[in-house]
Amino acid sequence: MEEIFGRQQSILIANVNVDGNVADIYVNDDGTIGGIGDGIRWEHREDADLIIDGNGALALPGMVNTHAHAAMSLLRGYADDMILQDWLSQKIWPLEAHLTPDDVYWGTKLACLEMVRTGTVAFNDMYFMMEEAARAVGEAGIRATLCYGFIDLFSPEKREAECKATEKLIHHIRSLNNSRIKASVGPHAIYTVSPEGLKWCAEFAAQEKIGIHIHLSETEKEVTDCLTAHGKRPAAHLEDCGILTSQTVAAHCCWLDEAECTLLGKYGVSASHNPSSNMKLATNRAMPYHWLAAAGANPCLGTDGCASNNNLDMFKEAKTAALLQKFFWNNPTLLPAPDALRMAGNNGAKALGLPTGKLAVGLPADIILVRTDISCNTPLHNAASNLIYSCSGAAVETTICNGQVLMLDGIVPDEEKILTGAAKAARSLVGRAQSS
Amino acid sequence: MEEIFGRQQSILIANVNVDGNVADIYVNDDGTIGGIGDGIRWEHREDADLIIDGNGALALPGMVNTHAHAAMSLLRGYADDMILQDWLSQKIWPLEAHLTPDDVYWGTKLACLEMVRTGTVAFNDMYFMMEEAARAVGEAGIRATLCYGFIDLFSPEKREAECKATEKLIHHIRSLNNSRIKASVGPHAIYTVSPEGLKWCAEFAAQEKIGIHIHLSETEKEVTDCLTAHGKRPAAHLEDCGILTSQTVAAHCCWLDEAECTLLGKYGVSASHNPSSNMKLATNRAMPYHWLAAAGANPCLGTDGCASNNNLDMFKEAKTAALLQKFFWNNPTLLPAPDALRMAGNNGAKALGLPTGKLAVGLPADIILVRTDISCNTPLHNAASNLIYSCSGAAVETTICNGQVLMLDGIVPDEEKILTGAAKAARSLVGRAQSS
Repeated sequence: MEEIFGRQQSILIANVNVDGNVADIYVNDDGTIGGIGDGIRWEHREDADLIIDGNGALALPGMVNTHAHAAMSLLRGYADDMILQDWLSQKIWPLEAHLTPDDVYWGTKLACLEMVRTGTVAFNDMYFMMEEAARAVGEAGIRATLCYGFIDLFSPEKREAECKATEKLIHHIRSLNNSRIKASVGPHAIYTVSPEGLKWCAEFAAQEKIGIHIHLSETEKEVTDCLTAHGKRPAAHLEDCGILTSQTVAAHCCWLDEAECTLLGKYGVSASHNPSSNMKLATNRAMPYHWLAAAGANPCLGTDGCASNNNLDMFKEAKTAALLQKFFWNNPTLLPAPDALRMAGNNGAKALGLPTGKLAVGLPADIILVRTDISCNTPLHNAASNLIYSCSGAAVETTICNGQVLMLDGIVPDEEKILTGAAKAARSLVGRAQSS
Repeated sequence: MEEIFGRQQSILIANVNVDGNVADIYVNDDGTIGGIGDGIRWEHREDADLIIDGNGALALPGMVNTHAHAAMSLLRGYADDMILQDWLSQKIWPLEAHLTPDDVYWGTKLACLEMVRTGTVAFNDMYFMMEEAARAVGEAGIRATLCYGFIDLFSPEKREAECKATEKLIHHIRSLNNSRIKASVGPHAIYTVSPEGLKWCAEFAAQEKIGIHIHLSETEKEVTDCLTAHGKRPAAHLEDCGILTSQTVAAHCCWLDEAECTLLGKYGVSASHNPSSNMKLATNRAMPYHWLAAAGANPCLGTDGCASNNNLDMFKEAKTAALLQKFFWNNPTLLPAPDALRMAGNNGAKALGLPTGKLAVGLPADIILVRTDISCNTPLHNAASNLIYSCSGAAVETTICNGQVLMLDGIVPDEEKILTGAAKAARSLVGRAQSS
């Protein structure tokens, strides 16, 4: 088995369903897609290092999760069904105060395992001790854009420390020289970062030519407080601070009005919809997908952290998005299945500036195979409908990222070791918090 | 393998997690639970016909789906993202016009397979050609309460035919003499059944001492039309017709006002929440769980048919319910995980008058095992939170109904045959509809 996983090799994936057609896919040993089509197998059956029998599976570009706090997988199920402020102040923050770099490593390992299992090949992450997150991502074989959550709480002293921490992470990630791991700048939100902090983040991101990852308009309070403090709504405040760019991913976006959507469209901002988290925490409004799409913004999808979802399955998230858009905006034709699928894959890749998100010759091979010999894909009247409304990530059997096999026929190497290590770290973390 | 599945035998389930405690479960060869506790294994390791290694899995009572149209699994993904009336008149009804008894058999087989896989051991079904549904349920080994969808469209002639069809099904199901398969009376809804039809259904159900299964207050139009026609809201109209009883399951219940909830509570009606279907079809309001629970009604959970969900996974449905209640009623503390779990199991069993829905000595053994050596249950801070918010039915590894093993370690006998037969039936059905 060791020879199959995590290495560069040429791969022939035989007998899969690509956009409704029976096809084979060839992956070059440099990790790019070499060919897609009927009969590719006859060309490459002799020279491929590895042959995968697709058995009629649906071949798709891997999912891209555009808003996560991966290491929070250690907090999965630790506290739920609470009011946001109580949940944060009584449960989440006291536990996070005891987090060690080792916890971030194991939490990110667990998150990457779950992502590989459910067909996600890239994610956009904001947290702290991100050097350890980078180590876990390096081992897991998927892609990530990592940022340090910049929170200055309007204090000049704290701001200076946050700038340094941001610079440090970016230099560290550059030093890894791993094409799968990128850095971004992570001003947390307008209610935790001063205008000066936001402006520094914008300038630093532009100077380093990297992206920005921020929370935007998650709650109504954020909007009303912003109107009080700045006399304008959050998106306009971000525009003033230079945060709106085509490399910016704004998470949540629940309370944007139509003018703010137009503003995000003007700059080509990516808006990461996090429907499960928003519903669970009762934000009381759904991201206006239709306004954002019409304005030319890039609506994409994210799970948020495992403390507020409580999983990282982008298939489940895409269904929740499709249902919530219809329900909240009172129109059953909104966010149809093909659009929800695109949002979870292609739009996500675009948000992170990745060349992936579609299956095409010459692109990096980020490919997942979804079983069709399974009840959620029976009958198969319409693949997009089944993928969004009927299946979940559990139907993914094989995950390939950058041409490397990360899961094959449901097997992920080292799974047991990762589950054991993460469970142990979580127990120890809760123990430290309770005994303090 | 054949010796394990679908037979009466004594079973020792060793090393499972029951309500947070390590325990073993013994199932008598009459299908009832003989013992639950730590160390049961030492008593029965010699005499058990079958020993199942639970490997630390969570043992739960099986899920009960209180509103389905099982055979519609053949229509899964056939038409989505449409306005209700277009969807019905342009897609669903034309296809249903070509349904044969064989289709209902294969559709119900497929549905039962999916339910067994995702931990559902009983369901409440409304459709037609239900003799074939009963045949499929008989073979599948789970429990069902089946009704013929009574639709008289306010015509006395049609009403007579519907009464006969209802009587015929009940006699047929009685003749099967299968304790797992029960009949109920199925007046479709107030907008498809005349007051005379509703009254006949109520009287017939009382006479036969069986339950009633009806759609109630799914859309706002149902309420406004009812106010126009009868000068009262739907629940009050049902009360007038005698439909509200402690053996009545009312599906959807989206648009109930507080007085109607009180009415349902007064009669002990079961209200089946179908959140995915309601969101997908944009009903624009969520069942008032908190009013129903406070009034003493029995809130339970259902998936609706696969044409409007598009799956039968009660774990996913329970999460959607927990999220939708919080979101729509704007309170993150509503429908916490333990209540959502109870709604999907115990309350469902109560709705169908089943003695199951909990794990207790002497009760029929309807037991499911949910894996813990899996990312959705890692870490395991809180089992109810993980089950509702993190896992899905894919985490179920073993399903036992009435003491018979239906799935063991993810293996369901005849799965391939069922998938192939159902896929063939669905293709043929679409072919007939398109060539007509």
